[in-house]
Amino acid sequence: MDNNKIGTYNFVAEPFHVDFTGRLTMGVLGNHLLNCAGFHAADRGFGIAELNDNHYTWVLSRLAIELEDMPRQYETFSIETWVENVYRLFTDRNFAVLDKEGKPVGYARSVWAMISLETRKPADLLTLHSGSITDYVCDKECPIAKPGRIKVTQQTPVAEYVTKYSDIDINGHVNSIKYIEHILNLFPIDTFKEKSIKRFEMAYVAESYYGDTLSFYLEEKGENEFDIEVKKNNQEVVVRSKVVFK
Amino acid sequence: MDNNKIGTYNFVAEPFHVDFTGRLTMGVLGNHLLNCAGFHAADRGFGIAELNDNHYTWVLSRLAIELEDMPRQYETFSIETWVENVYRLFTDRNFAVLDKEGKPVGYARSVWAMISLETRKPADLLTLHSGSITDYVCDKECPIAKPGRIKVTQQTPVAEYVTKYSDIDINGHVNSIKYIEHILNLFPIDTFKEKSIKRFEMAYVAESYYGDTLSFYLEEKGENEFDIEVKKNNQEVVVRSKVVFK
Repeated sequence: MDNNKIGTYNFVAEPFHVDFTGRLTMGVLGNHLLNCAGFHAADRGFGIAELNDNHYTWVLSRLAIELEDMPRQYETFSIETWVENVYRLFTDRNFAVLDKEGKPVGYARSVWAMISLETRKPADLLTLHSGSITDYVCDKECPIAKPGRIKVTQQTPVAEYVTKYSDIDINGHVNSIKYIEHILNLFPIDTFKEKSIKRFEMAYVAESYYGDTLSFYLEEKGENEFDIEVKKNNQEVVVRSKVVFK
Repeated sequence: MDNNKIGTYNFVAEPFHVDFTGRLTMGVLGNHLLNCAGFHAADRGFGIAELNDNHYTWVLSRLAIELEDMPRQYETFSIETWVENVYRLFTDRNFAVLDKEGKPVGYARSVWAMISLETRKPADLLTLHSGSITDYVCDKECPIAKPGRIKVTQQTPVAEYVTKYSDIDINGHVNSIKYIEHILNLFPIDTFKEKSIKRFEMAYVAESYYGDTLSFYLEEKGENEFDIEVKKNNQEVVVRSKVVFK
């Protein structure tokens, strides 16, 4: 029964998808996770394509990834995904990252809302397709902490960036993966020589658009822990992120 | 006989791989082309992995892409690749991009050299594996012009960019695909609203590294034709590019 609840998707770590250490980048992993969420939902009747007909779309609110290891260049790996909870306004979707031998090397948690494309207001997930999304709730273990609180009080940005053509997705927004790249670009390359990312969190708060100036505020929370806040045009918070190295 | 000479690989245009118009980005198409080159060579005993054992690697010198259309979000498409010519120091590899119905919507040409990882000097392709690479030469038609001359005399850069963590590949170089993104980011988004890219060329001249300052020189060659030169640290030319819109 639970077999149909869990989707499994296979990948290979492509040459331009690994960083200078030869490990898959966090941005590419994030892209694969979100694609798997899309495949899994579409196969069960809750995909973007189905929802667009009904003028609804999924919106990613939180993403937390925790890893022991990352696939190396040319290695195969797979991603499992399943729905942990469905609430009225949010659903929790989890992931496992399996290495080429099928051993879990990491997990991820994500939180999604559904909004109306017309009103931009959240939809009630429990009434969607007569509540049948709840049939896919699965109690597979996801042994990492839920997305936590990210708090930045720092008032001086460490970097500014004006968004460009390549940042913008089909909805006209800066795409969720580009934020990950821009945030990791705040760290000097030596950080990635000496350390690897143990845990990475994103909180998607608001949308930014072409030509917006993004300001990046970085706060060291501990020896290996950094909170980041990204504001657009010196005002509204767009995303927050936490990076924990090991 | 020619069937084994042509490799065919299938793709789908993923949500984070399309631009704001919903069409596959040139960077992602470039990534797929280079991956197909890698798969095709590996399957025939000339891949990077095989060569690394022998301390040689492929180096991309030129890439020219010409398209009538680009795959839209969620559309399947395929890429064919084959070897057109093998010379002593270079080989010409061509590509066709086929839409979901198998109709060609574009072609690409690439020029590669092989270098020794120890001496960085070019290897003789005609003696590689006793010259057996020439067995794969295929006369399939590639009805687009060869990579041409790109000449920029402009002395004032339109943009500067300091390379960051996400730009760097496993060899410690700025990766070939990132240059494509940075070059297309020179154009205002309105250009891509009104026009699409008809032809795109890259000439990879030298490597750049983490922390290098890239300066972008842009020259309008005609109403819809632009030549771009990228220098590192205000000195050496790193890449040149031509973008023709329609």
